[in-house]
Amino acid sequence: MTETTAPSGIARLATTDADFTARLDHLLAWEGVSDGEVQARVAEILAAVKDRGDAALVEASNRFDRLSVSSMAELTLSAPRLRQAYEGLPAEQREALAQAAERIRLYHERQKPESWHYTEADGSVLGQQVMPLDRAGIYVPGGKAAYPSSVLMNAIPAHVAGVREIIMVVPTPDGVLNELVLAAAHLAGVDRVFTVGGAQAIAALAYGTETVPRVDKIVGPGNIYVATAKRAVFGQVGIDMIAGPSEILVVSDGGTDPEWLAMDLFSQAEHDEDAQAILVGWDAGHLDAVEAAIDRLLPTLERQAIVRESLSRRGALIHCRDRAEAMTLINRIAPEHLELSVANPEGWLPEVRHAGAIFMGRYTAEALGDYCAGPNHVLPTSGTARFSSPLGVYDFQKRSSVIHCSPEGASELGRVASVLARGESLTAHARSAEYRIKE
Amino acid sequence: MTETTAPSGIARLATTDADFTARLDHLLAWEGVSDGEVQARVAEILAAVKDRGDAALVEASNRFDRLSVSSMAELTLSAPRLRQAYEGLPAEQREALAQAAERIRLYHERQKPESWHYTEADGSVLGQQVMPLDRAGIYVPGGKAAYPSSVLMNAIPAHVAGVREIIMVVPTPDGVLNELVLAAAHLAGVDRVFTVGGAQAIAALAYGTETVPRVDKIVGPGNIYVATAKRAVFGQVGIDMIAGPSEILVVSDGGTDPEWLAMDLFSQAEHDEDAQAILVGWDAGHLDAVEAAIDRLLPTLERQAIVRESLSRRGALIHCRDRAEAMTLINRIAPEHLELSVANPEGWLPEVRHAGAIFMGRYTAEALGDYCAGPNHVLPTSGTARFSSPLGVYDFQKRSSVIHCSPEGASELGRVASVLARGESLTAHARSAEYRIKE
Repeated sequence: MTETTAPSGIARLATTDADFTARLDHLLAWEGVSDGEVQARVAEILAAVKDRGDAALVEASNRFDRLSVSSMAELTLSAPRLRQAYEGLPAEQREALAQAAERIRLYHERQKPESWHYTEADGSVLGQQVMPLDRAGIYVPGGKAAYPSSVLMNAIPAHVAGVREIIMVVPTPDGVLNELVLAAAHLAGVDRVFTVGGAQAIAALAYGTETVPRVDKIVGPGNIYVATAKRAVFGQVGIDMIAGPSEILVVSDGGTDPEWLAMDLFSQAEHDEDAQAILVGWDAGHLDAVEAAIDRLLPTLERQAIVRESLSRRGALIHCRDRAEAMTLINRIAPEHLELSVANPEGWLPEVRHAGAIFMGRYTAEALGDYCAGPNHVLPTSGTARFSSPLGVYDFQKRSSVIHCSPEGASELGRVASVLARGESLTAHARSAEYRIKE
Repeated sequence: MTETTAPSGIARLATTDADFTARLDHLLAWEGVSDGEVQARVAEILAAVKDRGDAALVEASNRFDRLSVSSMAELTLSAPRLRQAYEGLPAEQREALAQAAERIRLYHERQKPESWHYTEADGSVLGQQVMPLDRAGIYVPGGKAAYPSSVLMNAIPAHVAGVREIIMVVPTPDGVLNELVLAAAHLAGVDRVFTVGGAQAIAALAYGTETVPRVDKIVGPGNIYVATAKRAVFGQVGIDMIAGPSEILVVSDGGTDPEWLAMDLFSQAEHDEDAQAILVGWDAGHLDAVEAAIDRLLPTLERQAIVRESLSRRGALIHCRDRAEAMTLINRIAPEHLELSVANPEGWLPEVRHAGAIFMGRYTAEALGDYCAGPNHVLPTSGTARFSSPLGVYDFQKRSSVIHCSPEGASELGRVASVLARGESLTAHARSAEYRIKE
């Protein structure tokens, strides 16, 4: 697929290439496919937990996580256990986690929408009342991908929103618990943890079991079984977006140290082999320097094999004509992470229509946002920034319209509603409105 | 299922009944099932339109809507055609529609969220940028359920949000166009209309064809094929909630004219046989009076057969102990429409945690909100008000996080990020952050 001969295997593209659009489309293409077999297995697990509750949940956990527990009591962690995990951390980690949690909390406090109302001349009141969800479920992957930062990013917005109860589920394959994850749950305000995962955990949260309470919304990333299960229960409960692989688009004006940029690309690529790291610039010599830095630094990385695979499969250095073309590419790609490694990023901002998070200037490495800058790291992937937002407080609240007509207002509106309802042949609507018309 | 012997067939329940909870659960139960056959047919249609574009769209429209057109040109309506529909309406309808559109616009203007940012002590800037979608697709059902009010309610929030292009699709079974629907599209700021429907219309909006542009989000109600198709393309594009049957919960303190209340229940029940109308009160004599009014007025309704079916299958008059129990029922049911036909509805409001729209006081008939009060009539059904909101301007906008670290801020955050990234074994993340640490 790529024409490069560079050791890193990263593709070099130019917007002037005859086949540029096709190659870019190919590079960006991503479809999270859950085939018929996955769907059937998930449907079976969902049905079992819906029908048999805890018993099915215990069975599935024993089977898929290679456990041998006999009841949900063994798969339940209490608040004191979470606090114990937090207190048991080395001081440096404990402090870093607490600082991150505090900054995330402060940022999300700004997202809280207010209820509002206004009164019309005739005394009628219109408004919108904002209320938190009663109960939220946070899915946290187990094993390799168990990230304490994700616990903070998923649970803190729910806590700030005022959700009454936050339930976390996290699988423990082979019984392995991650103390950092539990510590993060303590900091983030999680109320209860069940050490279950997969489609069975999603089923438990969506339908409720004897032990696991039914939640109103499920958020958090997971594998293909988790994603398929979330899609299936959508409507029964709320869900967040189904995430694809993580990606970054770095735009460089040539003024940032090539090694910084190489490492920024690596930090994306090291997530997994499907992750995508793309850099765009109009200075060909600078792109050469970034490529050389990539080749030079790649062998020094702990996760070298993953990075190499990710860069050669889905990475690219794109040479564009100028700033305007870079902007067009930004809005075409609608990246999850956009790093504007340029001199005056504020000047770019008003034209950026689609991006999950925008990292401005040479100092704002994406990694800072991943952990502790404050904004959420759960972001729309695979171009879905065209229509979706970072996870936020607004995902854990909902609105109710409020209408209080005065007798005069009802009379006035009644006349309009009557005409329109009769136009739609809904005559009981019309008559209900007409009762409120003053003669 | 019901024990009533009343002519209307509406059930009488009391919270003191031994089987009350079970009967209420049964009454509220609703699952919009799309069986394997529907899913397979929808998958086939989606694949055909994705692969063959306009040709498949024309074929499916000819087949399902019983047309005989040869190209998409015959299934396309321009802005002048919409204006012509508007200008051709009888004056009374034209004015009522314009008044409704204006009120809806004014209310939704209040929903516009603002971009915001704040600067920290070290000069770092954090914020959130709000941007509209580029393109929205509005699905409008054809035939019987073609409601001009729904066009206003779906398209005006998109227009207020600043969406660049609003595409409407509406099927024309047997070639029948609804002039009121086209007039509403004109008023609401719809840019283009394609007279296609069903799963094929959803496919065209989600994937794009030679004629129909791909949109970023699809909203609007439809039949089981439309709902199944929307669920299938979710992720590729944004979608709104998948709506169940419409419902109302009326709470009466006994002070409202029983005939008004009966008609309010009818206005819900006349939508279709699955619609749900429930009234709750603690005054048994008043419930008797409402039931008598129902029996008396039912024979006078144009849509009597539908109302009778709806009331006997899914309606109920519930006698509860007191105000507190009524409030518990409100939050248990999480109704799409809540009518608080009580003396001091403001006193109830803070305790209402889950409702799509709240109609306050004796004068605020739900029908006023359906057409022209201002708030949206696209509301969460089947208890989904637990976690979702009325359709609004926020559905046609999305947010981007903005982070601009000063050199000092990046240095400070770099230390925290480094510790956390190393705790997650993401060392390229750590090194990317560490480059920005000042020595």
